[in-house]
Amino acid sequence: MSSQHPCITDGWFNEVNDKSFPGQAFSLKVNKVLYHEKSQFQDILIFESSDYGNVLVLDGIIQVSERDEFAYQEMISHVPLYTHENPKKILVIGGGDGGVLREVVKHSCVEEATLVEIDSRVIELSKKYLPGMACSFKHPKVRVKLCDGFQFLRDVAESGTKYDVIITDSSDPDGPAEAFFQMEYFELLYKALNDNGVVIAQASENVWLNLDYLKTLLHTARAVFPLAEYCSTMLPTYTSGQLGLITCCKNPKVNPTDPSRVPTEEEQTNMRYYNRGIHSAAFVLPTWAGKVLKP
Amino acid sequence: MSSQHPCITDGWFNEVNDKSFPGQAFSLKVNKVLYHEKSQFQDILIFESSDYGNVLVLDGIIQVSERDEFAYQEMISHVPLYTHENPKKILVIGGGDGGVLREVVKHSCVEEATLVEIDSRVIELSKKYLPGMACSFKHPKVRVKLCDGFQFLRDVAESGTKYDVIITDSSDPDGPAEAFFQMEYFELLYKALNDNGVVIAQASENVWLNLDYLKTLLHTARAVFPLAEYCSTMLPTYTSGQLGLITCCKNPKVNPTDPSRVPTEEEQTNMRYYNRGIHSAAFVLPTWAGKVLKP
Repeated sequence: MSSQHPCITDGWFNEVNDKSFPGQAFSLKVNKVLYHEKSQFQDILIFESSDYGNVLVLDGIIQVSERDEFAYQEMISHVPLYTHENPKKILVIGGGDGGVLREVVKHSCVEEATLVEIDSRVIELSKKYLPGMACSFKHPKVRVKLCDGFQFLRDVAESGTKYDVIITDSSDPDGPAEAFFQMEYFELLYKALNDNGVVIAQASENVWLNLDYLKTLLHTARAVFPLAEYCSTMLPTYTSGQLGLITCCKNPKVNPTDPSRVPTEEEQTNMRYYNRGIHSAAFVLPTWAGKVLKP
Repeated sequence: MSSQHPCITDGWFNEVNDKSFPGQAFSLKVNKVLYHEKSQFQDILIFESSDYGNVLVLDGIIQVSERDEFAYQEMISHVPLYTHENPKKILVIGGGDGGVLREVVKHSCVEEATLVEIDSRVIELSKKYLPGMACSFKHPKVRVKLCDGFQFLRDVAESGTKYDVIITDSSDPDGPAEAFFQMEYFELLYKALNDNGVVIAQASENVWLNLDYLKTLLHTARAVFPLAEYCSTMLPTYTSGQLGLITCCKNPKVNPTDPSRVPTEEEQTNMRYYNRGIHSAAFVLPTWAGKVLKP
């Protein structure tokens, strides 16, 4: 373990990427580096920031900060789960910090939530440094598989197992998650889904950064699913303050912009970001982006 | 004119402010500094960025970039203008770059748009370096007054002149715009408004940065107006990727979340961000913020 990291200069972590977001950078002030290693799969950095709590960084890109993570975890979980009228069996691909699982098990109808994470170090380190997220690993409905998500889906296709909701909570396509943004992945998701099933995937971009890429990704999703829509969640530590999510439905009559369930009073008490209004609002696009991304 | 600026290091402009947004920073790559001076009122910097076009910075805070300015100008203009059923007489306080005026005169019902800017240098420099915004100064419906907006409103109160929509497109409260965030300013706005009039003001913060400040600002607005609501617009070059706007109505039956007019086909053709859907979506708040900011 090294306490130095090439992205940290003069006490600031700098998120810079000439390929994905040229000409702009976001920085967080570092109190101290908690952990740094190159695991078998990726560069893992965890630091305590001055104002955003502990921060997990994979391959130089911020994955979660304790201060704003709920905006991501709640939206990527509750948008598909409330879209589905009765989700029982949930699959999470990636998401080794545990934050998505924490949200999934808030739905009392969920009977089983399986997490497939390729990098066991992310889980172990999240348990230590991001306990507010990793708390969900202890939940009786949760199962964890340490393997490649893509291979897991291939095995699922052979076995005939089906899920109601599948959430791809991956890192960006430059690293080990590259395959999660390809046609074959969407085909495997389709096969692994029940007839009324819903899929959501982080899109790694937003409308400001790379609209053409999002158009291509939606085109790929729509070649497999009868319905795929773009929505987004807004949080400071993601590039440009927002992140795109792609929602796909196997049944074209399921409308992800108009959820079939709403949070019960008790469920709503446990949510800081998600509500019925923000579910639909997340699908509303500014005019120039809507022209490109709407079907 | 000096080409050096304390916020520019190693070819990057860094937006850092320990008071307003401690522990986080946003940076843009600089191709070249186009202009830098300390005017009578503020520090003015204009630079050509690598990926965001020309950028105007006042007192170290990004005001507009050519790439994403429309998201701000369209929302702060069209939200109040489409809320009003027939806006004819418009007042813009601040907004010396001309972008808000450009949007206001897109409404054919508008008969007169008056801009009150304290710093004539901002207008002159915008004409030179931000021509896509400053184009509106030539429009026959536009009048410009070079004076303090606060004093202008005092004179308006004495003269009895009334406006249908007043837009406060100011800089943040740390500089010459400080008075625009006080009770007396809201009282002057109220007096300067027709009975069905609508006011919008940039709130200088967003829900992630300083929710308590927004609560206080709304409290101030609600002490004067029967109705004041928070909405926001999303763009990369504002801190955390979003900026709050406060909309106030003199008639409590006017509902700013449900506009009384929609863009005509021709008007919509000329808008890149605003549309009927995003107008209402801009008022939808994440749960934790809604609890604090909703009346």
